[in-house]
Amino acid sequence: MNIILNIGIIGYGYWGPNLARNFSNHPRVCLKRIVELKQDRRMVAALAHPQTELSSSVQDVTRSPDIDVVVIATPVSTHYELAFDALNHDKHVWIEKPMTATSLEGEMIIELALKKNKIVMVDHTFLFTGAVQTIKQLIDEKRLGEMYYYDSVRVNLGLFQQDVNVIWDLAPHDLSIMDYILGSKPQAISAVGKSHYATGLEDIAYLTVYYENNMIAHIHVNWLSPVKIRQTLIGGSHSMIVWNDLLSDESLKIYNRGVDMIQSVESKYHYLASYRMGEMHAPVVHKKEALLQEIDYLVECIENNRQPMNDASSGTRIVRMLEASDASLKQSGAPIQL
Amino acid sequence: MNIILNIGIIGYGYWGPNLARNFSNHPRVCLKRIVELKQDRRMVAALAHPQTELSSSVQDVTRSPDIDVVVIATPVSTHYELAFDALNHDKHVWIEKPMTATSLEGEMIIELALKKNKIVMVDHTFLFTGAVQTIKQLIDEKRLGEMYYYDSVRVNLGLFQQDVNVIWDLAPHDLSIMDYILGSKPQAISAVGKSHYATGLEDIAYLTVYYENNMIAHIHVNWLSPVKIRQTLIGGSHSMIVWNDLLSDESLKIYNRGVDMIQSVESKYHYLASYRMGEMHAPVVHKKEALLQEIDYLVECIENNRQPMNDASSGTRIVRMLEASDASLKQSGAPIQL
Amino acid sequence: MNIILNIGIIGYGYWGPNLARNFSNHPRVCLKRIVELKQDRRMVAALAHPQTELSSSVQDVTRSPDIDVVVIATPVSTHYELAFDALNHDKHVWIEKPMTATSLEGEMIIELALKKNKIVMVDHTFLFTGAVQTIKQLIDEKRLGEMYYYDSVRVNLGLFQQDVNVIWDLAPHDLSIMDYILGSKPQAISAVGKSHYATGLEDIAYLTVYYENNMIAHIHVNWLSPVKIRQTLIGGSHSMIVWNDLLSDESLKIYNRGVDMIQSVESKYHYLASYRMGEMHAPVVHKKEALLQEIDYLVECIENNRQPMNDASSGTRIVRMLEASDASLKQSGAPIQL
Amino acid sequence: MNIILNIGIIGYGYWGPNLARNFSNHPRVCLKRIVELKQDRRMVAALAHPQTELSSSVQDVTRSPDIDVVVIATPVSTHYELAFDALNHDKHVWIEKPMTATSLEGEMIIELALKKNKIVMVDHTFLFTGAVQTIKQLIDEKRLGEMYYYDSVRVNLGLFQQDVNVIWDLAPHDLSIMDYILGSKPQAISAVGKSHYATGLEDIAYLTVYYENNMIAHIHVNWLSPVKIRQTLIGGSHSMIVWNDLLSDESLKIYNRGVDMIQSVESKYHYLASYRMGEMHAPVVHKKEALLQEIDYLVECIENNRQPMNDASSGTRIVRMLEASDASLKQSGAPIQL
Repeated sequence: MNIILNIGIIGYGYWGPNLARNFSNHPRVCLKRIVELKQDRRMVAALAHPQTELSSSVQDVTRSPDIDVVVIATPVSTHYELAFDALNHDKHVWIEKPMTATSLEGEMIIELALKKNKIVMVDHTFLFTGAVQTIKQLIDEKRLGEMYYYDSVRVNLGLFQQDVNVIWDLAPHDLSIMDYILGSKPQAISAVGKSHYATGLEDIAYLTVYYENNMIAHIHVNWLSPVKIRQTLIGGSHSMIVWNDLLSDESLKIYNRGVDMIQSVESKYHYLASYRMGEMHAPVVHKKEALLQEIDYLVECIENNRQPMNDASSGTRIVRMLEASDASLKQSGAPIQL
Repeated sequence: MNIILNIGIIGYGYWGPNLARNFSNHPRVCLKRIVELKQDRRMVAALAHPQTELSSSVQDVTRSPDIDVVVIATPVSTHYELAFDALNHDKHVWIEKPMTATSLEGEMIIELALKKNKIVMVDHTFLFTGAVQTIKQLIDEKRLGEMYYYDSVRVNLGLFQQDVNVIWDLAPHDLSIMDYILGSKPQAISAVGKSHYATGLEDIAYLTVYYENNMIAHIHVNWLSPVKIRQTLIGGSHSMIVWNDLLSDESLKIYNRGVDMIQSVESKYHYLASYRMGEMHAPVVHKKEALLQEIDYLVECIENNRQPMNDASSGTRIVRMLEASDASLKQSGAPIQL
Repeated sequence: MNIILNIGIIGYGYWGPNLARNFSNHPRVCLKRIVELKQDRRMVAALAHPQTELSSSVQDVTRSPDIDVVVIATPVSTHYELAFDALNHDKHVWIEKPMTATSLEGEMIIELALKKNKIVMVDHTFLFTGAVQTIKQLIDEKRLGEMYYYDSVRVNLGLFQQDVNVIWDLAPHDLSIMDYILGSKPQAISAVGKSHYATGLEDIAYLTVYYENNMIAHIHVNWLSPVKIRQTLIGGSHSMIVWNDLLSDESLKIYNRGVDMIQSVESKYHYLASYRMGEMHAPVVHKKEALLQEIDYLVECIENNRQPMNDASSGTRIVRMLEASDASLKQSGAPIQL
Repeated sequence: MNIILNIGIIGYGYWGPNLARNFSNHPRVCLKRIVELKQDRRMVAALAHPQTELSSSVQDVTRSPDIDVVVIATPVSTHYELAFDALNHDKHVWIEKPMTATSLEGEMIIELALKKNKIVMVDHTFLFTGAVQTIKQLIDEKRLGEMYYYDSVRVNLGLFQQDVNVIWDLAPHDLSIMDYILGSKPQAISAVGKSHYATGLEDIAYLTVYYENNMIAHIHVNWLSPVKIRQTLIGGSHSMIVWNDLLSDESLKIYNRGVDMIQSVESKYHYLASYRMGEMHAPVVHKKEALLQEIDYLVECIENNRQPMNDASSGTRIVRMLEASDASLKQSGAPIQL
């Protein structure tokens, strides 16, 4: 016999409608209640979800006995307090990214979730896309060989955020993907960037993340690009991946290419590069909606009392990297140890 | 009555054949002599240029009375000595990029050229392409508005160099373009990168160059990319450019796009972004061979005793930035003042 | 004071949900009732549109006094009968494409609509896209010069239809666009194609449509292409358009290119071609949902008792071309006069 | 001991320089003599090939005892006479495409070549590209399954020919590729097209070629397209190919995709389509210069007295299809039996 989880969403702003639509379409959950402070947004929610209760009090969700999972889709500064209240009232928690405004808040949530034995899942939606699932599998099967680099360009025109810079806005996508697929602990992070408007928030920035064994990751985030680019190169000693997230077909291409460096017979300081230029293939990548997959996973983790990969610890690791990027930005790109 | 300049090329390796072909096709110069130390390469040169003299002694070019312009296409470590000898014997000099191994060498060449009143031109071929010429014109006409950023990705698989890292190999292209089009003095540079092979030379690297007024430039150079990318974004307050150098048509696209930040009536700390999403156009870009255009310019500068834009000072500025990138690499990306 | 039109939809299959969603989102109409024969599809409709009545009897829509507009989204073989019944009961009618199974049926609908003074609109949705609107405007402003050709490729893998061949499935899009933008009466049509499966229905086909003044149109439709292509070239004496409908940005490119043929001085039979290779530009194309625009237009036509451009006459012209393509297919591509 | 073949080229116009460059670079042949009637073109040839004799008399090549192979790169109307003279004087012959102006001329060359036991090779260069070689191999290995269709788009702006229409100019490429890879005899051909300039020669045209077993080929050739497209779709029951000849990398993509039609249990007239959407891969395609490969093949055929695949019979089959396309054009696309 399957349980049905009762869901309460807090926040019906930019991302809330997507959450509400997917939670209401999933057979194993029931979208019981939506809390939204603004009346006009409550009206929009009411029209789209006539069978869901609307409320303007967060406690109708965080403390209500008929709610199993609290979904927090509010500005990041409020995440901690809401999650803390929900956990305290024995709810499971789903939090939008970034998980919290500080890593300290993140650690307190980790601790409380552990004490309460509740699931905390951070909504890093990208992890549940077909592309990232396939990349993860390729890396786990050692198909790329030794990992060399991860390079992501995530740029387009707008939307400027009011409260966070472009790193906090866009980089969590890549940071969570890296956390998931690279299976390696970052050692240091450096960030450079510039603001061109009176808000003072960086609108273009570059992050570098250092790993052991000379692996390096780099992320270009930009609100000022005339064109939208979502392209990631992942290089290994054996194969290399190009992931173009804007393509609906063939978004993932795997190149059987590499370089071997051979010591020259003439001199031990002289190397000859031998290039392997093999074929490319584009695997079939599932196109199921990522949020629906993530809800599947939520249900599965709760049913089996299993810790999700995108748990509070993972979310806090991402926040710690964002904090380090802020520190590095203030020091003109000096690397910050993690 | 037009003069015909007698040309002597030193070095017939990777780039030498291109130089020889273009110098021999240009009506205002005569390719008199090629010096090449390796016998097999001299044979190749002889076959391609039966009317040109071959020699294995550099002084047949640097010191010969029948040579007007010495073209130096040898490894960078030899540039200084050859250029110095040529200038000393009252030759004009054309040097491949990067101009010298150190900025000190560069300064000594600047001084000697001045004293001898001879032209030194550094072969930054890209400056003579239709794309860069058009970009330069757009910027000079203030069509982009205030300059915000220059972002270049210059990656492909190989060719690994033996003596220099990927920055010294590929970044001079962008550094010379930036020197030419931005019209602004760089203030600091930082570089990060990693080597994945026994040579110890970085095969992937990221450069950031800081300018006044929050303008920022960033260059991704990489010998380990599975695909070739040559894409540059240039953002200004009014228009933005995407330059894809791999396209034979429509390589340059100009977007009439921008953002205006308006202070909110509610709060002076609150801004509303207003986006302008205008049309894109791809201007007609000339497709004349860049090297031929550059030889035109060489002849013109010598005839009119005019300082070229890509003179020894410009070449030395590029070398200084490369030196700074080395220093920054050693300090994990700490910015180096210029 | 604005009227609100009451809408009744018949058919909730492949396209019905899109219609229902857009009619229910439009402020000037009310989605009163949906008729669907299959119970499981009625269930789906009920979930998505809880405030709309469901019925299994078409007469609840075609004959109900509280319905103003009957929307017919059923298989093409039923269009005529339903439209006829609706018009007879003084409803306005919206019919999915192709309008009817035969041009004779089409003519009878034209006649009845005239007699009843009711609007009949055929849902050629493409006409309301930003791309087609922009192309129409360019042609009307004579920006292309004299029209030379229209060439469309509309191919992808699947979906095989059960009752019609690939021409009846995909070509109505282009035929309706041509009818709208070319402003010229087709003179003849020829069609070739092949079937590769036991259904005997052509799965790949090529249509040629002849116009006066040597203008020619050609359409490649194909259910067997490994990749999806939606590309149209429109050539005129002055400018040329490339429309790639799969791009969300820059889907429309206008090339200031052309050829002038100059009689040679040597011989009156000898011509010299002079090529104009001007710039390309991509205009801003509106991205409003086409169906919503079309509903706007429906309301406007009904309010002002104005004949829509996509009326029954236009729909019947398309059906006549489809009939001619069938006749030509049977004669191995012999041209059929229209 | 290897023989060296002495080559004489007639015609140094558009394609002649490519031929001369490749013949002069090939180790197994010697470019002995070039015949060109126009003095200015002879000058250009002399500069590029100082070691080759120049002449203005075709008999210096067709009848000279020191020539082994006559290369005919003149206007098509002269091909027959030159080839006939060369064969009569016991030369092997290389003819540019199309081989002759009429199929009757082609048959007389076939006959004479047989009688004289000499090689006649028609320069269908595309057959020697890596892409076509790979496609041929895939088809021979039955990797595509049963062949369904060949669809080619070969369009760009210009160059208008003076003496032939766009079909004679561009279609021979595809016709020769089809002749080579499809391994099936065409049954009929139909062609439609239009001329928009005073020359009266078609500048846009569409060819359809019918084969047995419902295989169909279609070629769009166009001198009036604003953009250059060189794309071919090749569909089989098992796999499908997309060949984009403008890409230097990944020009060939093979899709493991297909459709199976299953008879419905409900009705024998009702079929269910089952789609196989497997992965795509891009094989490594050799990038050797096609003309050099073709010269290799010429030498090999002469040495071994082996009939080339692109012999006079193949060339005549292409000419016969071009003649049929002319006949069909005059009959508005009526199919012409072959």
